[in-house]
Amino acid sequence: MDIFAALRQRWSCRNYKSLDIEEEKLMKILEAGGWAPSVMNLQPWRFYVIKNPALKQQLKDHCEVLAQTIFAKSGWKWVSKYSFEFLVQAPVLIAVAADPKDTGADQFIKEQGTGYAYSCCAAIQNIMLASHALGVDTLWFSLYDTPAAKEILGIPPHLDLVSIVVAGYSADPEKHLPRKPIADLTVIKE
Amino acid sequence: MDIFAALRQRWSCRNYKSLDIEEEKLMKILEAGGWAPSVMNLQPWRFYVIKNPALKQQLKDHCEVLAQTIFAKSGWKWVSKYSFEFLVQAPVLIAVAADPKDTGADQFIKEQGTGYAYSCCAAIQNIMLASHALGVDTLWFSLYDTPAAKEILGIPPHLDLVSIVVAGYSADPEKHLPRKPIADLTVIKE
Repeated sequence: MDIFAALRQRWSCRNYKSLDIEEEKLMKILEAGGWAPSVMNLQPWRFYVIKNPALKQQLKDHCEVLAQTIFAKSGWKWVSKYSFEFLVQAPVLIAVAADPKDTGADQFIKEQGTGYAYSCCAAIQNIMLASHALGVDTLWFSLYDTPAAKEILGIPPHLDLVSIVVAGYSADPEKHLPRKPIADLTVIKE
Repeated sequence: MDIFAALRQRWSCRNYKSLDIEEEKLMKILEAGGWAPSVMNLQPWRFYVIKNPALKQQLKDHCEVLAQTIFAKSGWKWVSKYSFEFLVQAPVLIAVAADPKDTGADQFIKEQGTGYAYSCCAAIQNIMLASHALGVDTLWFSLYDTPAAKEILGIPPHLDLVSIVVAGYSADPEKHLPRKPIADLTVIKE
């Protein structure tokens, strides 16, 4: 697939078929993550590939309780009605975690460096683009309480859980959200 | 260019020719950034395209002083010798900034949401991949003190400067850094 087609057509899927991802595809997808740039080439990403139905169910249960807490604080009605069904539908959740110590010189500038997390985000975007090119649909998911989600998924305490990529085959047609005109978001300093 | 070629061959360039980026290419690159996924489709990214030589020089001067401070704290010799010449060589610096309020429900979970910054990182990775496909070389740069860099580049106080993409045409051949085997970074929970 052409790079620009992948960049433009990748989309966020929230309804999955009960269909596994082929092992060969999954390895290609994770390898694409590993090609991301990272601070000092530390490659801080660790991929927890969650296929276990009980773990996915526990994460979903946690998110449903959390959503009601968020609704109480925010008043956002969509949160109270949000369906986390995709967490158990999707065959694979790729939890991307990293040790905050695997950051760059920014640890000497800011209170806590962000380089490790930003490197993981580059890996996640690579994963989503590679998935799309292979016909696998994804969602960038981060609506969880980090300590609780880490405990459920068995991610070691010293790692930060940066985000989770939900991955599988969509049960719905592709849905592309509109974008703002780039000129409105750009300031040029000649 | 094929998506997998772009994902695998993108690299980090630290030595640029004094050659401008064509306007049409630059717009394509920024638009690729805008196709990134973002929390609640907020598209929080704002692109400050810095071409002004005086601003680039001021940023370089700032980074050189900062590097000595980091060296004093870290003892990392490479920091004390690091050349920031690419900040003035490269025709364009794309400073990617966002309002931390443009984050998702994570603002009700964590002390400060990270969704706005992670969305910007997805946009940055898109920018780097699109650049590579168009023959433009880049570097993901974040070795600056955020308040100082914002003041130099004229980025409003309410925005966070997530990172800067240095962009132009390399004066060196492509240099690809080795990657760890993905199996060593992956835990599968069946």
